[in-house]
Amino acid sequence: MKEAPAANPIERLLEATAADMAKVNALILSRADSHVEMVPELARYLIESGGKRLRPMLTVAAAQLFGRGKGSAINFAAAVEFMHNATLLHDDVVDESDMRRGKPAARMVWGNKASILVGDFLLGQAFMMMVETGDIAALGVLSAASAVMAEGEVFQLAKTGDLTTTPADYAEVIRAKTAVLFQAACEVGAMSGGADAAGRVALARYGLELGNAFQLVDDALDYGGQAGTLGKNTGDDLREGKMTLPIILALADGDEAERTTITTALGDAKATAEQVAEVVAILERHQALQRTLQQAHAHASAARQALDALPPSDMRSLLADVVEFSVLRAY
Amino acid sequence: MKEAPAANPIERLLEATAADMAKVNALILSRADSHVEMVPELARYLIESGGKRLRPMLTVAAAQLFGRGKGSAINFAAAVEFMHNATLLHDDVVDESDMRRGKPAARMVWGNKASILVGDFLLGQAFMMMVETGDIAALGVLSAASAVMAEGEVFQLAKTGDLTTTPADYAEVIRAKTAVLFQAACEVGAMSGGADAAGRVALARYGLELGNAFQLVDDALDYGGQAGTLGKNTGDDLREGKMTLPIILALADGDEAERTTITTALGDAKATAEQVAEVVAILERHQALQRTLQQAHAHASAARQALDALPPSDMRSLLADVVEFSVLRAY
Repeated sequence: MKEAPAANPIERLLEATAADMAKVNALILSRADSHVEMVPELARYLIESGGKRLRPMLTVAAAQLFGRGKGSAINFAAAVEFMHNATLLHDDVVDESDMRRGKPAARMVWGNKASILVGDFLLGQAFMMMVETGDIAALGVLSAASAVMAEGEVFQLAKTGDLTTTPADYAEVIRAKTAVLFQAACEVGAMSGGADAAGRVALARYGLELGNAFQLVDDALDYGGQAGTLGKNTGDDLREGKMTLPIILALADGDEAERTTITTALGDAKATAEQVAEVVAILERHQALQRTLQQAHAHASAARQALDALPPSDMRSLLADVVEFSVLRAY
Repeated sequence: MKEAPAANPIERLLEATAADMAKVNALILSRADSHVEMVPELARYLIESGGKRLRPMLTVAAAQLFGRGKGSAINFAAAVEFMHNATLLHDDVVDESDMRRGKPAARMVWGNKASILVGDFLLGQAFMMMVETGDIAALGVLSAASAVMAEGEVFQLAKTGDLTTTPADYAEVIRAKTAVLFQAACEVGAMSGGADAAGRVALARYGLELGNAFQLVDDALDYGGQAGTLGKNTGDDLREGKMTLPIILALADGDEAERTTITTALGDAKATAEQVAEVVAILERHQALQRTLQQAHAHASAARQALDALPPSDMRSLLADVVEFSVLRAY
């Protein structure tokens, strides 16, 4: 296990965006409000439960990178966070998740029905905030992201437990369900910061690659990361039957007995900790977690390279460091 | 039971909007497409299942009423239908409905999870179609409608089985969950048709009141309508615990025994046909269905009055006739 860098880049990003994020957070709270009591109760429970707000921070940071803020970055950042939280509410219903951010998932407190409908409300509010900017081009980026994200979730659902899932299928799932929102968050940030076409493309690419790296790391962490450290939630993806890259690689390379061990546990909500440990041992035997993290590193490099097209600045360096940190989580 | 008018206004509306609706229907089909097979399968199952497409027809008709079509009415009409279908997919999950438009609900064929996610996809596609028009003002109308609709659904959920629900609560629920989309459909139609401010306000009012009348009639029909005719789906709202106006009125006016009969069946998914018949008898005793339909008539009158602000035309007359027809369904 490597040492974390002395100055955590996420902390530095928090500091660099603090003034704008204070506005974003105020906007988030005010737009989660409603005369229907259950709406703010549920929305705030999720929103205030200690998520990092990485996506809206990226929007604000991307706008700052180009300097000429039009103020619309605040609205876009809040909209991006609402889109993300709407997705979390619906995902937790779809995945039948009990926990989120270390607390019982909203659906365990208010039920699946309220989670679905408050998700819809947050999505509607997100679009209202975007519309208020009057920036139709940025609206196009975010509305396309919204459709692609849902498409990616359906694709993932369709592939659940499907042993024929390929690495290319997986790459499409994580691009659509995760990376596209990182991409849109960075792209609309750049747009509202006054970026030219090249700057917009660079930030879009940065966000996309960062998002891909982020999800690959998440999927490795679900099996304990590089160290294969078993924790309370290790194997959630396995029990849900999610065809993530570690499983796809191990199924391709494993022998008959190993394949049987994996497929027996895959999609079995009641798979035991012992079964998970056996699967993790197989993943390690075939270096499946290591190879997954190698792919994350490749995307992380691509994200940093995208920034090279831009003039050097403190914010550019910081955004490059954020990439590295997002991958180091796995070690 | 009155005779239906010789020329059914919905048929006449279909005829008057046929050319534009052919374009709308083609757009709907193309935008329900996706490389993820489950998306078009599920979406088309619902979309092609014989809904009347009343909302998009109203958008197109409102644009025609003002004549100077900018072409964007086609996009808005398709977007409105997608918003409506997204809501149906989510509502059927929330209400645990087995049937929709005379067929098994999509969730019975593809499951709740796919229904939630394809609903999200349709909503994303709806916003993309709106964005393509470049009409930020109309986008504002529709995005606000989207948030209010979800809020209304949450409010209805919160009031499920709540015996203290007032007629004002109910009015708020139906305005938000149903009438606001009718309002937005007509308003953006008018906007894309080149209406001036007065025309836009008139059509928004027309749509709102038509939507209110429409939902009141639906809620009376759920108990058999004016005639109290018992059918296969009679009492669905009762079994789901929905606090619709007939129940609110009967609870207010009924004696202790009647209230007990109602509250015993209310929210009991297994309430028998006999229990439903007893509740319908109580509703009739207190003229609860008749009074509900009187309110529908009042909203229908308001809808027609809203049109009076506009110059006479064939389309204006047709839109007025559509209101009457929507209320006559209950007889």
